[in-house]
Amino acid sequence: MSFAEASAVTRVSDNRFRVEIQPGWDIFGISNGGYLMAILARAMGEMAPDRYLASISARFLNPASAGPAEVEVEVLKEGRNTTTLQGRMTAGDRTLFVGDATFTRPAESPGRLVSHGIPPDLPAPSECVRVLPSEDSPFPPPFTGMVDFRIHPDDMELGAGKSNGMPEVRGWLGLLDGELMDPYALVLSADAFPPAVFNSDLPVGWTPTIDMTVHIRRPGPHRRVACRFYTRFVSDGWLEEDGEIWDEDGNLVAQSRQLALLAR
Amino acid sequence: MSFAEASAVTRVSDNRFRVEIQPGWDIFGISNGGYLMAILARAMGEMAPDRYLASISARFLNPASAGPAEVEVEVLKEGRNTTTLQGRMTAGDRTLFVGDATFTRPAESPGRLVSHGIPPDLPAPSECVRVLPSEDSPFPPPFTGMVDFRIHPDDMELGAGKSNGMPEVRGWLGLLDGELMDPYALVLSADAFPPAVFNSDLPVGWTPTIDMTVHIRRPGPHRRVACRFYTRFVSDGWLEEDGEIWDEDGNLVAQSRQLALLAR
Repeated sequence: MSFAEASAVTRVSDNRFRVEIQPGWDIFGISNGGYLMAILARAMGEMAPDRYLASISARFLNPASAGPAEVEVEVLKEGRNTTTLQGRMTAGDRTLFVGDATFTRPAESPGRLVSHGIPPDLPAPSECVRVLPSEDSPFPPPFTGMVDFRIHPDDMELGAGKSNGMPEVRGWLGLLDGELMDPYALVLSADAFPPAVFNSDLPVGWTPTIDMTVHIRRPGPHRRVACRFYTRFVSDGWLEEDGEIWDEDGNLVAQSRQLALLAR
Repeated sequence: MSFAEASAVTRVSDNRFRVEIQPGWDIFGISNGGYLMAILARAMGEMAPDRYLASISARFLNPASAGPAEVEVEVLKEGRNTTTLQGRMTAGDRTLFVGDATFTRPAESPGRLVSHGIPPDLPAPSECVRVLPSEDSPFPPPFTGMVDFRIHPDDMELGAGKSNGMPEVRGWLGLLDGELMDPYALVLSADAFPPAVFNSDLPVGWTPTIDMTVHIRRPGPHRRVACRFYTRFVSDGWLEEDGEIWDEDGNLVAQSRQLALLAR
């Protein structure tokens, strides 16, 4: 099943959509947050035609699992250059998460470009470690089989601690069977890697996302993206994880930040 | 007028508040986004007693100016450790912005602390440049007189460009008359400085915020905070501005990120 199919939405009224959270896009049965945000964003996109996703924020309430769900979207403002929307996903009487987003028109001219950052130092995809689901253990989870997921060989040792002590994970992400990555796939990418804190001496375990924002800086389509996720601050059981997503030509295509709880 | 008074809310029903956007907390007549978010957060706090603001996200629709406004808040989930809320501020029939937030209980124990960052390299407050409103020109704006605002002497030359080319602005922020800074004041701080891109060779002008998230990592109260704001990426007229807010002992107390439009 392609990512487009797995994140499809069916419009059932002006502002309501029926969706099917697919099995396999989960970690230990809990659906991936980026995957869920991509579904919401796709429903929003149906209400912002000819505009692409520039920014989406979500705040998570309850863990989701495979099955039917409903998305409700409100267009808050349709401006000359941007459309602002708000929405939520519910399953039965449980709100899974709420979110809001800004869609925009493709830029007419590229304008000034400033970049004080560099893509992650990644070996070629063929020299990274392709992560695939385990057939006889829960890890790696089935989710890793839904995408083309290749981790930097230096970042594979979960729970080991890096020499510099900074929790960080880097790798390539693409879709399967040549499916190109649109902004919704970039949202998926922003939450697809194991938490950066797993690659440190901090506890490995369920690290629930409180909120997450993804800014799409180049809508694509992209064939494959180079990703870097890192956590600089952990305190009182809370941590932020920042993500940078780059195209193969070394351009930043998305930024993400999430606030999460440290595993106990 | 204290910050607490300027951001006060009056509950008029279960989940509605009357607020007064005060004059002076604006730049060229447009109310400061962090100030508006602080008002929304304060209303949310009324509905999450004994918990403090840990995270707030906002998405801005229409510019606000001084005058009466209304805040509506919905408690989405009251969990054992966190309360999740959503809200919006309207003036007449115009939605100014929407937002959502997570409140939490104070930590019982400090837990593991990781910090891969250092406070901004700031001279003592007395050696920074106290910015005060101009009496005969629109800049500095009246807003600078509402707080104790001291900018790093090296970061004062707006529109000049820094030697390293990275748009950055650093300084101290406190409230007046000894008023201590609570999480709502930290939200204000996160949007109180001039855009970092002003301290580069990029255009200086109206830089509207599309969305902003503030994570409160130490609720305080704080007497004064050291702030650093920087922009790493500008493309197609969009930019992110990241903020770090530190206490006087060198602990990170808040992080912020906003997506904004470059001035034309």
